[in-house]
Amino acid sequence: MKLASIDNGSRDGQLVVVSKDLTRYCAADNIAPTLQAALDEWEKIAPRLELLYRDVEHETVPCLRFREHAALSPLPRAYQWADGSAYLNHVELVRQARGAEVPESFYSDPLMYQGGSDDFLPPRADIPLGHPDWGCDMEGEIACITDDVPMGTTSQQAADHIKLLMLVNDVSLRGLIPGELAKGFGFYQSKPATAFSPVAVTPDELGDAWQGNVIHLPLMVDYNGQAFGRADVAADATFTLADLVSHAARTRNLGAGAIIGSGTISNKDEGGGPGRPVDQGGVGYSCLAELRTIETIRDGEAATPFLQPGDVVRIEMRDKAGHSIFGAIEQTVTAPPEGLR
Amino acid sequence: MKLASIDNGSRDGQLVVVSKDLTRYCAADNIAPTLQAALDEWEKIAPRLELLYRDVEHETVPCLRFREHAALSPLPRAYQWADGSAYLNHVELVRQARGAEVPESFYSDPLMYQGGSDDFLPPRADIPLGHPDWGCDMEGEIACITDDVPMGTTSQQAADHIKLLMLVNDVSLRGLIPGELAKGFGFYQSKPATAFSPVAVTPDELGDAWQGNVIHLPLMVDYNGQAFGRADVAADATFTLADLVSHAARTRNLGAGAIIGSGTISNKDEGGGPGRPVDQGGVGYSCLAELRTIETIRDGEAATPFLQPGDVVRIEMRDKAGHSIFGAIEQTVTAPPEGLR
Repeated sequence: MKLASIDNGSRDGQLVVVSKDLTRYCAADNIAPTLQAALDEWEKIAPRLELLYRDVEHETVPCLRFREHAALSPLPRAYQWADGSAYLNHVELVRQARGAEVPESFYSDPLMYQGGSDDFLPPRADIPLGHPDWGCDMEGEIACITDDVPMGTTSQQAADHIKLLMLVNDVSLRGLIPGELAKGFGFYQSKPATAFSPVAVTPDELGDAWQGNVIHLPLMVDYNGQAFGRADVAADATFTLADLVSHAARTRNLGAGAIIGSGTISNKDEGGGPGRPVDQGGVGYSCLAELRTIETIRDGEAATPFLQPGDVVRIEMRDKAGHSIFGAIEQTVTAPPEGLR
Repeated sequence: MKLASIDNGSRDGQLVVVSKDLTRYCAADNIAPTLQAALDEWEKIAPRLELLYRDVEHETVPCLRFREHAALSPLPRAYQWADGSAYLNHVELVRQARGAEVPESFYSDPLMYQGGSDDFLPPRADIPLGHPDWGCDMEGEIACITDDVPMGTTSQQAADHIKLLMLVNDVSLRGLIPGELAKGFGFYQSKPATAFSPVAVTPDELGDAWQGNVIHLPLMVDYNGQAFGRADVAADATFTLADLVSHAARTRNLGAGAIIGSGTISNKDEGGGPGRPVDQGGVGYSCLAELRTIETIRDGEAATPFLQPGDVVRIEMRDKAGHSIFGAIEQTVTAPPEGLR
């Protein structure tokens, strides 16, 4: 089934069930007021939402027209947002650019950072940029939402805790990252508000494309209307979403509604070299930093600038028939307001 | 006023108003069902809670006996938990132990990490330890809860956004920290579930002890029934809670109910040297790691072990008349269950 949170002026939105083709929706707040409330009692609530989804598909309940612009992030705020880095190709390129090796442990022990989850951007909301020098970048990713995950859950056990899937724009401020990582405490200011796709879907919606706790489809990242990334989510994934959920739950429980992300999707080129742009026959990139890294390796310096005010980023995924699965994240970067630091 | 969340079997508990002496409470869920709900509309809700608090103080409403054991953390789960490191004395000692200098920027740019906020421990709950080698440690701290804080809020403006204060046990797994920090993404597995004091209080409850956005009282940390730390929260605080809130909001909004912590309270000894134990006339320590660091500097190696199963940590703060302000965090470390990794 497909679920969304419609902007009704409240902090958590109104839970609705969306038709498979994303054209219609029916309010579900008589079943659970919000998506978080549904996740809090998922075993009890999900079957009732599935029944409503069937009715929406059969058009046996009154529906309204679904507009992606009216959707908040499926969880407009969440109690947990942790983002892995499952695509080591990206890490390898970054390290290669500065002449460093990737530690062997990175291939068995996932990188993961704790993100801010109290104020997600809606999928069509502007990205507020405080200062152009902050080096704003998109990061196209996928993420899952879990139910309660007990401490010590294995990767195999974690698979059953993956209840919903979404797309992510993990907005990053590249200009602030080096200084922040040098302090040793990880990302904080360099990871501002994140946006998720208008719709969250149960894994069964992906059919054959959901195998081994990875999505076997390309993530479509467009930059100012041009195809920028078409990287296959399954190719070159060192870790599955289940691996990342297990990593997150090693020393503590995860609460229902925890969001665990994949990190920036990144493919090697055929033959194992750095990826080529889409217009040169490659699958491109899911963030600007990767292209800039490749430029640095090749030319000695990066030519592609980071996101500027007015730039538009679009992140979407389509099934094999070309239909949008999650709806599209589409965000415009806005200039800093007067007087902001 | 003083607020708590009583364990009623729900995830977020029942909001109650607690008497100043912590002996009585009155349910407030007719005003707001949970503390988060109150914070979501604080301007409207807080005055009504204050009226109820006055009635509780005057005993003009029926009250029940308040038991700290029945309280969850005031926010049993939260949308944001970010912990600063305002006490550079601690950082200086750690660096001195390994022969490194503290960068000058640390005195103007706070260290802060993003913590997991989906599953806080109740203040009297056991600390589940997955493996003794994880090097479990307490960290005695204070924290504030904010309302909505817009991106770019200055330190001066941030003061008005501090709505409630709490004590914290920021449980840390010292054995996992070096490996995790070496990966460059900051803390994740090394920061398991945190516990907060049974009661959250508005800053006015502290009277003269709340000045300059810092609490001017000692934090009492007891370890297995012995006084271990009596560090003054105001002494040696390089940053105030308002500074830390401003830092957290530099590149993004903070949502209502955001929890921002001070980091481990740490005082220099008289004369500026490393602190002495309480039983030697010093103010002691708010975590074991600081004592271990001092032992390392003095003796070449640490003698004090980390927390072992059965150890008890108690964190409390008393006003000048000796009355507990927030109630006590008191937690016992438990051995790993069979079969846990």
